[in-house]
Amino acid sequence: MPDFQSRFDSVCQRAREAMQLQTAADTLEWDERTGLPHAAGEYRANQVASLRAIVHGIRTDSSYGDDLTWLMGHATDHNPHSDIRATVECLHRDWDRDRKLPNDLVQRTAEATVRGQQVWDEARKSDDFSLFRNTLNEILDLKREAGERLCEGTDRSAYEALMDEYEPNASVEDLQQVFERVRRPLVKLIEQVTQSEKQPNLKAIEGVFPVQDQRDFSHRVAEAIGFDFDRGRLDETSHPFCTTLGPHDCRILTRYDPHVLSSGLFGTLHEAGHGTYEQGLRTDWFGLPPGSYASLGIHESQSRLWENQVGRSQAFWQWLYRDTQQTFSPQLDEVGLDSFYFAINAVRPSLIRVEADEATYNLHILIRFDLERELIEGSLPIDDLPEAWNARYESDLGIRPDSDADGVLQDVHWSAGLFGYFPTYTLGNLAAAQLFATATEQIGDLDELLARGEFRPLLDWLHQRIHFHGRCFSGNELVQRACGSPLSAEPLTAYLTEKLGRLYDLPRG
Amino acid sequence: MPDFQSRFDSVCQRAREAMQLQTAADTLEWDERTGLPHAAGEYRANQVASLRAIVHGIRTDSSYGDDLTWLMGHATDHNPHSDIRATVECLHRDWDRDRKLPNDLVQRTAEATVRGQQVWDEARKSDDFSLFRNTLNEILDLKREAGERLCEGTDRSAYEALMDEYEPNASVEDLQQVFERVRRPLVKLIEQVTQSEKQPNLKAIEGVFPVQDQRDFSHRVAEAIGFDFDRGRLDETSHPFCTTLGPHDCRILTRYDPHVLSSGLFGTLHEAGHGTYEQGLRTDWFGLPPGSYASLGIHESQSRLWENQVGRSQAFWQWLYRDTQQTFSPQLDEVGLDSFYFAINAVRPSLIRVEADEATYNLHILIRFDLERELIEGSLPIDDLPEAWNARYESDLGIRPDSDADGVLQDVHWSAGLFGYFPTYTLGNLAAAQLFATATEQIGDLDELLARGEFRPLLDWLHQRIHFHGRCFSGNELVQRACGSPLSAEPLTAYLTEKLGRLYDLPRG
Repeated sequence: MPDFQSRFDSVCQRAREAMQLQTAADTLEWDERTGLPHAAGEYRANQVASLRAIVHGIRTDSSYGDDLTWLMGHATDHNPHSDIRATVECLHRDWDRDRKLPNDLVQRTAEATVRGQQVWDEARKSDDFSLFRNTLNEILDLKREAGERLCEGTDRSAYEALMDEYEPNASVEDLQQVFERVRRPLVKLIEQVTQSEKQPNLKAIEGVFPVQDQRDFSHRVAEAIGFDFDRGRLDETSHPFCTTLGPHDCRILTRYDPHVLSSGLFGTLHEAGHGTYEQGLRTDWFGLPPGSYASLGIHESQSRLWENQVGRSQAFWQWLYRDTQQTFSPQLDEVGLDSFYFAINAVRPSLIRVEADEATYNLHILIRFDLERELIEGSLPIDDLPEAWNARYESDLGIRPDSDADGVLQDVHWSAGLFGYFPTYTLGNLAAAQLFATATEQIGDLDELLARGEFRPLLDWLHQRIHFHGRCFSGNELVQRACGSPLSAEPLTAYLTEKLGRLYDLPRG
Repeated sequence: MPDFQSRFDSVCQRAREAMQLQTAADTLEWDERTGLPHAAGEYRANQVASLRAIVHGIRTDSSYGDDLTWLMGHATDHNPHSDIRATVECLHRDWDRDRKLPNDLVQRTAEATVRGQQVWDEARKSDDFSLFRNTLNEILDLKREAGERLCEGTDRSAYEALMDEYEPNASVEDLQQVFERVRRPLVKLIEQVTQSEKQPNLKAIEGVFPVQDQRDFSHRVAEAIGFDFDRGRLDETSHPFCTTLGPHDCRILTRYDPHVLSSGLFGTLHEAGHGTYEQGLRTDWFGLPPGSYASLGIHESQSRLWENQVGRSQAFWQWLYRDTQQTFSPQLDEVGLDSFYFAINAVRPSLIRVEADEATYNLHILIRFDLERELIEGSLPIDDLPEAWNARYESDLGIRPDSDADGVLQDVHWSAGLFGYFPTYTLGNLAAAQLFATATEQIGDLDELLARGEFRPLLDWLHQRIHFHGRCFSGNELVQRACGSPLSAEPLTAYLTEKLGRLYDLPRG
């Protein structure tokens, strides 16, 4: 009989092998999104599929599962949050998840979502939800079946089981309560902001910002906040993202608009925030749970914290604005720091999620969270979806889409089968505000540090409180341990109320 | 019993699977050489090794070998050069080669050559062959053993069996005869050139050539000669190369020297020449012998033909020189076409192969070909190698290295175990001259076409005569069929004698 250690080592070795090939596939996808020759797409897709099939084979191998099941029964004398216990439990959970979904269902879902994204794209271009309706319905059936299989024998709902893939152990009920405590104050705050007589001059940050200057500037800023270019790189793509291709190879991608500075800059800060998380994980555990990110919500908290709490703060621009003016002279010569700061913090209800500011963004998410839950539960008939979408925009944001393209068809997620993914965005925003508030208390002179461009104390704090722990704690547990309280709505609403109140001269109270 | 077709299909499918993963590994290596983060090298090397191990597993699988052996016995009623027969014979040959080399030998060779390249690098930096001597001896023993295993039961020598990996079916005896017929006239021609009173002004092509302008220019030129950027890309690296990552994904890499125009330009033409071969292969046979290049010598003939016979011709510069002057104005404003053309065709004996011109280059190769053959045969003791090297440089090129670094240590090949590789360079030069001479006869007004920038007729001729056939013919057979005569020294020596005679005002006859 092999002992605990040798079974554990063998499981880890196979998980690392799978990660080696997964990151190879991810490298091919990075390449696809940065400069694959036009005609090379089909072969590349087949290559990636072959690699992912090998990875899937390793991760669903029955002897691998047997070892994990045996280890689960023998790991109980290890500390629940130790590296060893977390490794066994997370790998077992991943394996168990894969096991519960029959190959046939996985295959049909893969086909439906590849097709789904094409159909969605066509429907959006034609501005016609009815073209997407049947495909979405098919995807919903498949995801519902997956959710039901995953929650079978537990007290969880199908939707919660789907969400578990992105935010392990999160409770839909808890989220609903917290989100409701975000929604009400935000709807009110945004109403006040919209009605305020004091408004930013958005023209201040539009003009001519040469792309090569933006590139150099973004590189400098990413490096300054702590993204390590010895272990990563910054490139360009049409849909920004962050991907990790090895323990010392984190790649962030952004895009530059030659007429709008904020798009590339905050895009870079956002992705660099993701990057600092990946670079802060323990490299000796690369490919294993202690060296992996805890959840998408926690990942988003790191990107949002650097993009918003840091990158849209007054202190940050006290440090950076002189450099910015010089870099983009003469464009910003006549724009003062205060005008610039106000303009990058403008709040304005809009129809499009990806263009939303940090206040309205969450309302976009809460709408999607409610609607997709009702879709999976079956309480919202698919034919009622476009009207339900528009009605919620009217009640929450005060504006109503007049087209499907700007309404229910604007996001790729559902066409790709990503149900349960949206709430992680707002989870990230909540956690970012809560972590930043705690860091401010604990580090002390954070504003002063930021105003001097000293980001290391904040980054170290995040390394210790979040990054170092990998998947040894759930997202909720990480926030609880770092902040001494569970995830809550208050830090985000307080942060926005204070900042926007000041900027827009809002009445107190 | 499965029939011929089903066995054939199954073998093809496995070969294509192997190619899918091989090109994935090649993509990772391309990425490594274009911009891998500094700290990411070790993990990347392990990823590539894992992928190559999977590929090796597919290609040495015993049921794959059984099928190939069976097919070999049943393919005899197909035309010897048909796609089907070539597929069976080449895949069987590849499999048989792998089979004859025990895993242990392969493993020891892999380790010795990884170490060998490091030791060679150190030795070269220290300018001391004695530091490399023992490692080289070890590699020689391993390659000799491999060669002996490969030639066992045949009438071939160990060296010829090693060369077979790069130039299938080539005969060392034939090569020696042809090479000798190259060496004598070239030694004499180079002597005349060196003694001529008319010499080019090399300063004419040195100066300031901004890298971004060189990039755009190289891109334009590569596209003009027929490299298809919908199916490929051009990037930068420290050691230029060409790699194929899919049926529609050929990548060429060059490097630019801001003070020397010719380095980046002819580097691009060379690699684009390789690229046109890869892009000319039949995509429906990608990953199988009919869709693969025939040999390294033939590959080199395509790169050399575009770099030299086209790229260093007067006609080519009649087409391109005005654009060149405008692009690099004011640098070339005062340099006439004749001076430029003479400067890019300068011939001057030097110690370093990679910097050699098209005439002296072959002498560098012939020296290596003779010495490495004697090393493998055992007739040249390793301790005599540095002196043998220097003596040959003195007798063939009239100059003698005064250091190991500029002598026997200058090339990476032997440290990487590449014995039998060097002759393919001169094979390529010979075939390039012979193919170009035949194309000139058959197309007719080739000079006129080049002077108008019309490269398509030449490219189509090469597609039909060479590219289309993949591995259905050996390198020798391709030349024989395209030119109606076997590979010979005469076209190259005639081409160089004519061109250099004109440029250097050499006495006729």
